[in-house]
Amino acid sequence: MTQATPILLDSLWHNVNVATMKDGIYNSIINAAIGVKDGRIAWLGEAGKLPNYHANEVHDIQGGWVTPGLIDCHSHVVFGGNRAAEFEQRLNGISYQEIAKNGGGIGASVRATREANDDALLNSAKARLQSLMADGVTTIEIKSGYGLSLDSEMKMLRVATALGNQLPITVKRTCLAAHALPPEHENNETYLDYVCETVLPEIAASGFADAVDAFCEGIAFSKEQVQRYFTKAKALGLPVKIHAEQLSSLGGARMAAKFNALSADHIEYAEEEDIRAMAQSGTVAVLLPGAFYTLRETQRPPIALMRQYDVPMAIATDVNPGTSPALSLRLMMNMSCTLFGLTPEESLAGATLFAAQALGIKDTHGSLEVGKVADFVCWDIQSPGELCYWLGGNLAKRRVYHGNETMHQKIVD
Amino acid sequence: MTQATPILLDSLWHNVNVATMKDGIYNSIINAAIGVKDGRIAWLGEAGKLPNYHANEVHDIQGGWVTPGLIDCHSHVVFGGNRAAEFEQRLNGISYQEIAKNGGGIGASVRATREANDDALLNSAKARLQSLMADGVTTIEIKSGYGLSLDSEMKMLRVATALGNQLPITVKRTCLAAHALPPEHENNETYLDYVCETVLPEIAASGFADAVDAFCEGIAFSKEQVQRYFTKAKALGLPVKIHAEQLSSLGGARMAAKFNALSADHIEYAEEEDIRAMAQSGTVAVLLPGAFYTLRETQRPPIALMRQYDVPMAIATDVNPGTSPALSLRLMMNMSCTLFGLTPEESLAGATLFAAQALGIKDTHGSLEVGKVADFVCWDIQSPGELCYWLGGNLAKRRVYHGNETMHQKIVD
Ligand SMILES: [Zn+2]
Ligand SMILES: [Zn+2]
Repeated sequence: MTQATPILLDSLWHNVNVATMKDGIYNSIINAAIGVKDGRIAWLGEAGKLPNYHANEVHDIQGGWVTPGLIDCHSHVVFGGNRAAEFEQRLNGISYQEIAKNGGGIGASVRATREANDDALLNSAKARLQSLMADGVTTIEIKSGYGLSLDSEMKMLRVATALGNQLPITVKRTCLAAHALPPEHENNETYLDYVCETVLPEIAASGFADAVDAFCEGIAFSKEQVQRYFTKAKALGLPVKIHAEQLSSLGGARMAAKFNALSADHIEYAEEEDIRAMAQSGTVAVLLPGAFYTLRETQRPPIALMRQYDVPMAIATDVNPGTSPALSLRLMMNMSCTLFGLTPEESLAGATLFAAQALGIKDTHGSLEVGKVADFVCWDIQSPGELCYWLGGNLAKRRVYHGNETMHQKIVD
Repeated sequence: MTQATPILLDSLWHNVNVATMKDGIYNSIINAAIGVKDGRIAWLGEAGKLPNYHANEVHDIQGGWVTPGLIDCHSHVVFGGNRAAEFEQRLNGISYQEIAKNGGGIGASVRATREANDDALLNSAKARLQSLMADGVTTIEIKSGYGLSLDSEMKMLRVATALGNQLPITVKRTCLAAHALPPEHENNETYLDYVCETVLPEIAASGFADAVDAFCEGIAFSKEQVQRYFTKAKALGLPVKIHAEQLSSLGGARMAAKFNALSADHIEYAEEEDIRAMAQSGTVAVLLPGAFYTLRETQRPPIALMRQYDVPMAIATDVNPGTSPALSLRLMMNMSCTLFGLTPEESLAGATLFAAQALGIKDTHGSLEVGKVADFVCWDIQSPGELCYWLGGNLAKRRVYHGNETMHQKIVD
């Protein structure tokens, strides 16, 4: 009997259990081995079934669990300044009205973002990304939306692109020009004229955006206004997603489903008609418990309906300076369980496979399967449920991005 | 004019702002310098006023803020096993009753803790402590209470002592023999006979406990039972503290105040009479928002009354496997603001000076003042309010314990 030709690997990772998240469930492999070649998973299975192989590096993970790298599919991580002072003022009894009168709120972030140059935006976002990455994130979506002019929206998307080039993280960029009404425009309609005639075409031509997003809410844009904006985005070949039904039910999610939106996000107030439409269009529901928590909301998203209609649920940080200054996706997973009642398995699927789906990269990311990108995290835990169970904590012991290890532990000794 | 003799320092830390927390308020020094000698603060003030000095080491902190090392004054960080499986079962729809019937709940932690040897308990707690320390904790209180027999309570306190000896963290040890009724005892009264006649005297004699604690609640021990237990503790020369008014108002806090308790903890249901009594006895209110959050409680502690009566408020993790698997004190600070309405300044005082008071070490810990222990943290923030503002994140860039740097950053590159 001849020995088969060995499979050639760049690295082999073993002595660990794996929650593969294939099909959005744990699909665990106990005592597994992972073979990596050219940044992709070349072999995955029980270590005992590993065929004859040759690997340049062999890594003994020494127990614990591996999961796919976490995917944060909704973030506003690029912004100028921060609003900690506002947070402190509110807790010292200063009213929202007074803060707004003194130039606070989203307007403050728009001003600070417009004033910041590329380097300043890049460096402040980099520090925040480092926190997210140290906690297991390997892919992140980054929105514009604090620029609200062609130049400053382009600047934000350029910085998002640079972050992906400079750090071991995959960045998907979303143009959120329809986030708020900038001060130099009279009303939403004239601003949207500008956005549809100038901003979206230029951004589409630049190649700096992978998708287009809008904030559909009483305090932002109406369903009809977003519809017009989406029509333009689609004509330019860009997929869409929406902030919808966060504070009230406006039917934004069902409207977005007609545009085959990648995702409808927040959706605390979504109704059965929205969920049904999302199921039909394959639109992912992105849940943002950090904003729900920070705003002390009480209306929870309709989890039972989403389960009933089989709408995939993703979890994201929504990291932003006003309503969700969240630097840990794992904490959002805990909140999705504790505040929304998701199971830890749903929550992990929401931060991996369904988050990938919300970004249109499910074929290559979000689960550990042969042929997919080798982005994974080795966790110091005894069961995958611990990722949701612990509040905080340095659980990620190794982080592998495209097959390469990219983390040094923060330790105290 | 002759130059004064230089002050001799082991190290000088400069180019940073300091929130000293003297008197429980920020008491900030902008562009400060900190001189350390023999593990204590030897000089502190504006860098421009620094006298002639000689230092063996000079550290340029390069901006940001220094605060006192955080103090976690209520923890159950030593325990066997964890209850992530139970957390997951509950979210999968299995009832508390069924989980209890299958041996879950606190009984599971008692079994696992009794079965674990010193090394196993030490190593699992060490990993959790590393997380807390990387987030800025330099002093922690550790309770027994999952042993509930002389041998196993002693084991827990021995492990707590060893943790303080092996890691750069100060550990204060609390005997919580009155945590729950262990299975081998018929009822609370016979168990307390055993505790008062055997456990407390032996533990007091061993020197392995700095204080004594009890859980006063309908599901645990009555006010009268705790009173008897406290009487014994006081006779043995041990200060007391209490878990009280978490789920109902039993008057435990006002009773504990009569024993000059160091602290009354949880106290969501405390009434004005409790708060008045605590003010008179100098008892600190220890708020535990992690348990409030995890249990989805709605009754908030009486913050306004505590402000009115000038009762010092501390914030702690309550880290435990059932109701607060919290590995970040800073996250608890955020929750104390978001869920309880504390200001960031009150919250930071609660994790520093008033936490020190709750442990009886206010004279040496909890604020940065000449003569106090040189435990401090350098944070990558622009205002101290950011410590409460961000949800998660690796904000601690340097950690100094007794004058020595004790952290290596967890970075992704
Ligand atoms: Zn958002
Ligand atoms: Zn406790």
